Amino acid sequence: MEARVLNFGAGPGALPVSVLQQTASEMLNFRGTGMSVGEISHRSKVFMDLLAEAERDLRTLLAVPANYKVLFMAGGGTAQFAAVPLNLFPDAANDPACTYLVSGSWSKAAAAEAKKFGPVKEVSEWQHFTCTNTRFVYVCTNETVNGIFFDPVETLRNHQQILIADMSSEILTRAIDVSRYGLIFAGAQKNIGIPGVTVTIVREDLLGSPCKHCPTVLDYTVTAKNGSLYNTPPTTAIYTAALVFKWALAQGGVAALEAQSRDKAALVYAALESHSAVYTLPVPPEHRSRTNIVFRCADEATDKRFVELAEQKHQMVGLAGHRSVGGMRASLYNAVPLEHVKTLVAFILAFGHAVENGIAL
Amino acid sequence: MEARVLNFGAGPGALPVSVLQQTASEMLNFRGTGMSVGEISHRSKVFMDLLAEAERDLRTLLAVPANYKVLFMAGGGTAQFAAVPLNLFPDAANDPACTYLVSGSWSKAAAAEAKKFGPVKEVSEWQHFTCTNTRFVYVCTNETVNGIFFDPVETLRNHQQILIADMSSEILTRAIDVSRYGLIFAGAQKNIGIPGVTVTIVREDLLGSPCKHCPTVLDYTVTAKNGSLYNTPPTTAIYTAALVFKWALAQGGVAALEAQSRDKAALVYAALESHSAVYTLPVPPEHRSRTNIVFRCADEATDKRFVELAEQKHQMVGLAGHRSVGGMRASLYNAVPLEHVKTLVAFILAFGHAVENGIAL
Repeated sequence: MEARVLNFGAGPGALPVSVLQQTASEMLNFRGTGMSVGEISHRSKVFMDLLAEAERDLRTLLAVPANYKVLFMAGGGTAQFAAVPLNLFPDAANDPACTYLVSGSWSKAAAAEAKKFGPVKEVSEWQHFTCTNTRFVYVCTNETVNGIFFDPVETLRNHQQILIADMSSEILTRAIDVSRYGLIFAGAQKNIGIPGVTVTIVREDLLGSPCKHCPTVLDYTVTAKNGSLYNTPPTTAIYTAALVFKWALAQGGVAALEAQSRDKAALVYAALESHSAVYTLPVPPEHRSRTNIVFRCADEATDKRFVELAEQKHQMVGLAGHRSVGGMRASLYNAVPLEHVKTLVAFILAFGHAVENGIAL
Repeated sequence: MEARVLNFGAGPGALPVSVLQQTASEMLNFRGTGMSVGEISHRSKVFMDLLAEAERDLRTLLAVPANYKVLFMAGGGTAQFAAVPLNLFPDAANDPACTYLVSGSWSKAAAAEAKKFGPVKEVSEWQHFTCTNTRFVYVCTNETVNGIFFDPVETLRNHQQILIADMSSEILTRAIDVSRYGLIFAGAQKNIGIPGVTVTIVREDLLGSPCKHCPTVLDYTVTAKNGSLYNTPPTTAIYTAALVFKWALAQGGVAALEAQSRDKAALVYAALESHSAVYTLPVPPEHRSRTNIVFRCADEATDKRFVELAEQKHQMVGLAGHRSVGGMRASLYNAVPLEHVKTLVAFILAFGHAVENGIAL
């Protein structure tokens, strides 16, 4: 096997090596078809079987109730930011139908997109949110850029609003009660696979009344009625997702992945906190993401040195923070192995020790 | 190498074997990154270089003028069916801005989608079309389902309308004068790569005024301003396209591919015509597609036998006609080698001879 790096990128991010190996081995002949998965008809039995397997495995992983549809749609979060209002609040001409809890960059972007189609309510005090009079509440449960995790089910447990959740960067890292949500979506390029496909899980009773101006490609009802095969879907991206779901089940399912995620994040946060004179953690402990750990040093030059040395000495890549916030970000998605995290932890400790003691880096 | 079939599927269709082999060989380490192309950031230098190469190579292949933007967008034709009216005729409240020449299933679907956003003019006598008073004329130059090819530049050479062309199933099979078009798009899954990305070539002066309700993911102006990197693009699908463009250049570019396409189609049509008592060709000679050759036998049972025997005896797949029209369809995309076409031709002749002479099949 060729040299692999330690990939802490925020997305597109690390994939399981076994998934890549299987993909390579099947590239000329997928399941005895004599074709690559990218060359077979999306209406062939072999592809429809693959799609059904992907759906079944995802349903198993997240215990998706029978009254929810699982959709595989082209594009990523940005497409869903439009699809949500176009499908779920088609008549939002005057009264806002949805409250957007703006906890970071992606919920903010989702609210901005929704405003194109009608009024929405925006709430920036998401931590202290208690009540709203809109039918829907929209949240991004894990803000990839800001490293903020937020479980709306807990906060809103005494209310009747229908929850819509962007779980792109945390899906499959914890058990969730799908029945508490009206709709969940997740772009694949973090914990599910490669960019180009998004998984949407939607309660059936919310379907059936899209805005009449909804582009067909963003129409949940059309997609659901046609089993994600109304038009040619991103077949290769669905294939990768299918392999990742099998891998996730083989790991022990979401319970095992959640335990691994907790262990990995705890190690990194503990290392950062053990050198609190060197590393600043902007997110309060109760909202710290386990998948996107955001931190910074005293100045940009030190941040830059951290990122450079991590790559030069240990082949760790993807540690620079998002261009809009700077600093560092370590993304610990499911496919990032514990050994990689231990290497990162050792480096955090060594770097922190050196900075604290004025040792040349 | 494992057993490969002869893939005459209409899309997703055959890819060059060398492209698949390179994809497999780079699966664990793309360009020395120590990552798969699906694991690297779309904002990394290595990916942005790949995207720039893909654009440059496509510009070379089609001689795209400098005042045209090349966009790589998620989704396929169905997404573009909405994007075209949302971007190019945003104020189509009353007067139709565009005439849709309905030459088959896909132009019909495009017109139906456009009607969601405003009135459009539909013309079914596309063969005899001479004039329109709308600003735009929309065509599908090659109707994949119906096997109909139509060059609007020739027909409309004395008019001033801005041409919009869906070239999904014929792009890169002939030299075109891009400057005669306002916009050209092509889903990748026929001659460009795998499903999940569409190439759009658009004249710059048509950008800048999308409908205010245009979803960002379908916004040509936003996509152009951000070099197809506003949001996470379908990176793996773009990678495959980049490899196919390199392969196309290595074949000798579009001139060589056009010559191959003409040779392949001529062989198949000649074989079908040589048994005119057995095979019916529904499309008149002047509009016959070179990439999607549609034909049928006297009855459905014979059609079925043709498709079955082709697969059983010669590992030829994808020859059944589209489910909406039945019969047979042989798709001769660029990646279908001449040797495969010769096998098909021999089978057409043998099958025709057997049917004509009442020989058991």
